[in-house]
Amino acid sequence: MLKNGVIKVITSNKHKFDELDEMAKRNNVNLEWINAPKLEIQADSLEEIVRYSASIFYSIFKSPILVDDSGLFIEELNGFPGPYTNFVKRTLDNKGILKLLSGIKNRKAYFETALCYIDDKITKIFSGKVNGTIISDIRGTEGFGFDPIFVPNGSFKTFAEMKIEEKNTYSHRAAAFKKFLDFYITYRS
Amino acid sequence: MLKNGVIKVITSNKHKFDELDEMAKRNNVNLEWINAPKLEIQADSLEEIVRYSASIFYSIFKSPILVDDSGLFIEELNGFPGPYTNFVKRTLDNKGILKLLSGIKNRKAYFETALCYIDDKITKIFSGKVNGTIISDIRGTEGFGFDPIFVPNGSFKTFAEMKIEEKNTYSHRAAAFKKFLDFYITYRS
Repeated sequence: MLKNGVIKVITSNKHKFDELDEMAKRNNVNLEWINAPKLEIQADSLEEIVRYSASIFYSIFKSPILVDDSGLFIEELNGFPGPYTNFVKRTLDNKGILKLLSGIKNRKAYFETALCYIDDKITKIFSGKVNGTIISDIRGTEGFGFDPIFVPNGSFKTFAEMKIEEKNTYSHRAAAFKKFLDFYITYRS
Repeated sequence: MLKNGVIKVITSNKHKFDELDEMAKRNNVNLEWINAPKLEIQADSLEEIVRYSASIFYSIFKSPILVDDSGLFIEELNGFPGPYTNFVKRTLDNKGILKLLSGIKNRKAYFETALCYIDDKITKIFSGKVNGTIISDIRGTEGFGFDPIFVPNGSFKTFAEMKIEEKNTYSHRAAAFKKFLDFYITYRS
């Protein structure tokens, strides 16, 4: 029934959509980009944010919806900037994070994505996480957000020094989306 | 009709309620503290946040509701922490803000409050603002949030070095609440 279904992806960030679409196409899954800011609540958990947002968009479109939200969680900063990563990028930017971490040895951080899929039958959450390190300089021009200061474990490159395909072998968002695809390919058949 | 009405104030912060209640009592206005976290959306404008939150609580309680939200906006940090002041207090705290501002000459900042009153007839927004300076140390134990690093223009004390009555002669929240009281006293009569 869902075989040729299109899933609407709500994001005002074209980069995010491209990262997901690259993987979706390889699995014959059709995504449609809805260029809208997702309505986000203030919550410390990404899961709560995407669940709320997806339910609102489902009530508008009445068709399958995918909403994702990601955050960078820095251990020494008690999880800052967390769910407020976009706002902190716009205000403090990479150099603000480096200033907050200056003189601090523990540079451990992780990126996390929560993804909510909703249709007329189910609401399901998928999550992905990548551990890594905040380096002390800004490197690379690919990607977005705090990609230029984050090196995932197992690499020497920042996310901003990787092309989409390479980033997707490490990334939190790709990990969450892979879990979704595994589910969805069985679900729709 | 509203003469002996009680207004429910939604906040999980007892300090905030006490600041408002001190002024309300002097004007024979009855507030009731609802100890609940307001549902906050992620938005750069406080007005948008309180309007949304108040409408949700009105739909639950069906009685007069007051919701306020405040933020500290630091000029050199592009308005950071702004509407995310609570989260930033919990994660970076005062010392994080001082670190971000170390070596920076422009210490201008303001606190702003937006307050939404809603009942069965109207929805009205009131706002208040206080300009001041972020000092380079942490002083005082009264109040809450970033009070210990903020000195309002016209004083040499931080908000955290003032008792409630004194703080209310300067504060953004008091200014917004005064506007509300002026309105409400006429409105209910």
